[in-house]
Amino acid sequence: MIDSIKHVAITGGTHGNELTGVYLIKHWLSSPNEVKRDSFSTELHFANPAANKEVRRYIDQDLNRQFNLQDLKNPELKGCEQQRAKSLNEILGPKEDPRVDFIIDMHTTTANMGMSIIFNANDPLIIGMAFYIKQKMPHANLFYEPSDRLQDNFLTSMGRLSGLLIEVGPIAQGLLNHEIYSETHTAVMHALDYIEKTNSGQTIALPKQMAGYQFIEKIPLPENTEGDITAMVHPNLQNKDYHAIKPGDPLFITLSGETIPYEGDTTVYGAFINEAAYYDQNIGLSFMEKVDIILADNDQ
Amino acid sequence: MIDSIKHVAITGGTHGNELTGVYLIKHWLSSPNEVKRDSFSTELHFANPAANKEVRRYIDQDLNRQFNLQDLKNPELKGCEQQRAKSLNEILGPKEDPRVDFIIDMHTTTANMGMSIIFNANDPLIIGMAFYIKQKMPHANLFYEPSDRLQDNFLTSMGRLSGLLIEVGPIAQGLLNHEIYSETHTAVMHALDYIEKTNSGQTIALPKQMAGYQFIEKIPLPENTEGDITAMVHPNLQNKDYHAIKPGDPLFITLSGETIPYEGDTTVYGAFINEAAYYDQNIGLSFMEKVDIILADNDQ
Repeated sequence: MIDSIKHVAITGGTHGNELTGVYLIKHWLSSPNEVKRDSFSTELHFANPAANKEVRRYIDQDLNRQFNLQDLKNPELKGCEQQRAKSLNEILGPKEDPRVDFIIDMHTTTANMGMSIIFNANDPLIIGMAFYIKQKMPHANLFYEPSDRLQDNFLTSMGRLSGLLIEVGPIAQGLLNHEIYSETHTAVMHALDYIEKTNSGQTIALPKQMAGYQFIEKIPLPENTEGDITAMVHPNLQNKDYHAIKPGDPLFITLSGETIPYEGDTTVYGAFINEAAYYDQNIGLSFMEKVDIILADNDQ
Repeated sequence: MIDSIKHVAITGGTHGNELTGVYLIKHWLSSPNEVKRDSFSTELHFANPAANKEVRRYIDQDLNRQFNLQDLKNPELKGCEQQRAKSLNEILGPKEDPRVDFIIDMHTTTANMGMSIIFNANDPLIIGMAFYIKQKMPHANLFYEPSDRLQDNFLTSMGRLSGLLIEVGPIAQGLLNHEIYSETHTAVMHALDYIEKTNSGQTIALPKQMAGYQFIEKIPLPENTEGDITAMVHPNLQNKDYHAIKPGDPLFITLSGETIPYEGDTTVYGAFINEAAYYDQNIGLSFMEKVDIILADNDQ
């Protein structure tokens, strides 16, 4: 049986150039009733104001990779985002026994991932929330990347329960687009409504399983010996997030126009296809497998 | 009568996070025959390597606003891009009497501007080149922003003739997309072919006039007293570059969802609609007027 959720945090701008979350936080700070519910408190946080001020993803490190327990406890880590993670550990945590029960972190992507609900734990409350959002927004994609909460380096892992990351695209960095803004707003409303219904013991009719995608691995862009990329995502693959990639399908195309195929022997599915933020590590896309996400009974 | 073009420069990465031009320059450095023509020399330049290294539009100032003659001669201007402009003045210029005859500068935009040919001078060779490209690529848009070459602050003004800016979108910053890359490649090939034909006295059948758009003004996003934006481009306008905006049409939508209409009394056309790079000045779009671009006889 899950304890009820008493404290929810909504975070935006974890990546400083993803403006949608930043402006939703600004909006809710001036319209707090939209995020107010009777059975829990909701707090709003700009996750990375320093990077947001410069409209950059990060100043020193990706903030959304700084939250595993060892790093939070490591006094040697003194970069801008490493320090910000420690501050957020004080504000929301501490990670081992957090004050905040649940974190909803808002992100955008340059990939054509539509409304993607990213979660890292196979917990009935979290799976239930994802299913509830997908029931309300059937075009939503369920993106599961299993991770132990204390080892997890995402901001969403700072809650007592591992939280939910709302990832919407495609949108360029440093930009607002009303469709993306409105989609994100709607998904957060559903997440809050779900917690409210669960807290108050309302019965929510949810399917026992829904189709989703589980993260396998990140796939590098081809590069030369100097580490400079020599190819880009193939046009057949561009914008085809969550579509099947079969053995032999085109994956990349070189600057000179030669196609590089997928050489695996199983069908995979692409996500984060041509995400600008991953060019700092020369990553072209993520491979996912199609899975059935199972909702266990709450009281098992 | 126009003197023949002897020295052409192709520049990329004038904005360091517009990767298409940067990677086309890299490609042509390893495949120089593609840009080689018999009647003129072609040189290739990374315009802003410092900003490109950090995948930022600029380090200190927008490089593509630093090339007017007064600024080039002003020793007080010592920012990164101000110094780079002075270096490029030595490499390509001097502006008053440039070594290089013609500059083709490659850009991208987050706006849905497709293939846009931007030119600042009403010169038969430049208009002819723009018409030639549009003949070969009928979806191209002719974008005319008149400017005196010595006063002009664009990199393209560093040639003996004011040059051509190839602006392709939509694409996020910090990203390669094969369609955008390929479109830019094709347009540059046509520009070089046109110069080759003109230099060798070949007759090129071109219309006397073509439809285009002339820049009127930049339109700010609504902002509060702290200078923070309070609205975004209206969804009806998003991606509608070069479409008509009539009096009363929706222009912006606030964070709370209220529509702000266009209050002018003449029909205008949008361009650079929701360009991420212009958020640093809270600019939402440019207004353009539809015009007939006239090709004067070369020998008049």
